[in-house]
Amino acid sequence: MTAFASLADFAALLRAAPDADAAARAGAVARNGQLTKPPGALGRLEDLAIWVAGWQGRAQPRGDRPQVLIFAGNHGVVAQGVSAFPAEVTVQMVANFRHGGAAINQLSRLHGAEMAVHALELDRPTGDFTQGPAMSEAETLAALTVGWNAVDPLADMLVVGEMGIGNTTVAAALAAKLLGGAGADWVGRGTGVDDAGLARKAAVVDAGLARHQAITDPLQVLAALGGREIAAMAGAMARARVERVPLVLDGFITCAAAAVLQAVAPGALDHAVAGHLSAEGAHGRLLAALGKEPLLSLGLRLGEGSGAALALGVLRGAIACHSGMATFAEAGVSGG
Amino acid sequence: MTAFASLADFAALLRAAPDADAAARAGAVARNGQLTKPPGALGRLEDLAIWVAGWQGRAQPRGDRPQVLIFAGNHGVVAQGVSAFPAEVTVQMVANFRHGGAAINQLSRLHGAEMAVHALELDRPTGDFTQGPAMSEAETLAALTVGWNAVDPLADMLVVGEMGIGNTTVAAALAAKLLGGAGADWVGRGTGVDDAGLARKAAVVDAGLARHQAITDPLQVLAALGGREIAAMAGAMARARVERVPLVLDGFITCAAAAVLQAVAPGALDHAVAGHLSAEGAHGRLLAALGKEPLLSLGLRLGEGSGAALALGVLRGAIACHSGMATFAEAGVSGG
Repeated sequence: MTAFASLADFAALLRAAPDADAAARAGAVARNGQLTKPPGALGRLEDLAIWVAGWQGRAQPRGDRPQVLIFAGNHGVVAQGVSAFPAEVTVQMVANFRHGGAAINQLSRLHGAEMAVHALELDRPTGDFTQGPAMSEAETLAALTVGWNAVDPLADMLVVGEMGIGNTTVAAALAAKLLGGAGADWVGRGTGVDDAGLARKAAVVDAGLARHQAITDPLQVLAALGGREIAAMAGAMARARVERVPLVLDGFITCAAAAVLQAVAPGALDHAVAGHLSAEGAHGRLLAALGKEPLLSLGLRLGEGSGAALALGVLRGAIACHSGMATFAEAGVSGG
Repeated sequence: MTAFASLADFAALLRAAPDADAAARAGAVARNGQLTKPPGALGRLEDLAIWVAGWQGRAQPRGDRPQVLIFAGNHGVVAQGVSAFPAEVTVQMVANFRHGGAAINQLSRLHGAEMAVHALELDRPTGDFTQGPAMSEAETLAALTVGWNAVDPLADMLVVGEMGIGNTTVAAALAAKLLGGAGADWVGRGTGVDDAGLARKAAVVDAGLARHQAITDPLQVLAALGGREIAAMAGAMARARVERVPLVLDGFITCAAAAVLQAVAPGALDHAVAGHLSAEGAHGRLLAALGKEPLLSLGLRLGEGSGAALALGVLRGAIACHSGMATFAEAGVSGG
């Protein structure tokens, strides 16, 4: 069972997604003005709580049921020597996620999040995009569907993360194709390549851009230059948009998946907040293109949804204050 | 029963406080290098976990027993019209803390922190520092002792916060006296004064500086220009330093209390991290003087320890990753 039978269907669903609930949002704005604090004294936490309220459709939002989804994929482009780690690390890290040993497991547990890992055909890497398309349309559709179906529509918030040796190169190629610029503008050190590795990544991205120059449709771009975990993330983010589940964006790779959706439909990321600014070189540039201001900036560059999961603490704090604080009238405090 | 019988005794205890545990720190550094992530990929979280490990004296630090202490006091200087709220709000907000209705209650609960509120003679405001000393030595000593005795030496981390109508003016006076500059360099809008109120605050600080020009000893400065809740915070922070409990600094007023300790002993804040950069005008300048880089910057300006309590989420995330992640060997992951 799939919600969409073609890439065009997927795009149509995304374009038809409902906006946030205006009444719930207005209720949250009114409540915020009555809470026992000087106006605006909780800064961005106030905006966050109101924003979550609108997407959850509740004037008093909740934060006790976050979902964390990790998607893993392997990439033909690693044959070009773009990563500091070998491709088998992807499957090893998936096992680590399943055994609870990775950073994202600890952060999910800390925030009471239900976490699931979806490994997408790790023994069958995508095509090397310098030689041809990374994925067929059918493969892209299948990966979008995995992500779409993984989302719990009743989750309070969604974090989407990834694991895939080589995928900072793939994300750089997507960003360059969708937003302009050359490989050198978008590549970074990933898990830790040296200067020669960085130059190799830029050249690989440039080769991919040259090979797929004629493609303009964003979902065709995703097929040509993307990867299964990136398509799955895009599918999950789109489902969250349709179901009005607030989304927390992670780092560079997650944001490249998000950029595909934004290119499909201008309001596709209205339900998303940027969890953090990562240390991967071009993440700030990508967030600026998405019009998102990060909540945290702590030099993380791990992926796995880790920065977004850490930002759940900020969102849950905002929600706890908004929904749990007394009003001036309730507390008998002067002012307000 | 008091741990110190005079301000000089207090200063001596602070100067004699032990440093972090070098062996625990070294153990944490070694462990960090073996965790299943590329080196440095958790950014500042790695430094935080190692720093907490040293102060807790455990190579695998813990974060499930934070303590939040709120101190409240009233200030004679409010007679000069320096606040947007009337002085009775201090006692009303203490009742709100006790009934669980304030922002800090929600954030403490979110992070499993034990929270306590200490109201210091709210019906007997300190002296107006433009007319004479705010407190006698005995009053200062009593307030330092309240803070000192309030700390749980077995807490994993400590957040210290405050409530006291008028205390941004008091904090500005302390900062100006201890760190140089005039009133206008240190005052801000507090709970929300207008331009005329801001100018009044600067003039009041200048008048306090002029009246107490001859005083140089930092604890005498605290007596002359401070307040009971600020002295109590200084007492709690000093106790945490002596007991090696990691401390999370909150906003401008908390940092003014911290600045007193730093003036007493150069290493007095080695156990402290800056929880956030607040929107109160001179907080960034004060953090720079303390040599602290904030974890969060979300425009909060509420006090109550709220920004620091929000930052507990970052610290607990760092601790959870460090102490809970698998090593490369445990997980069978290549690399490391």
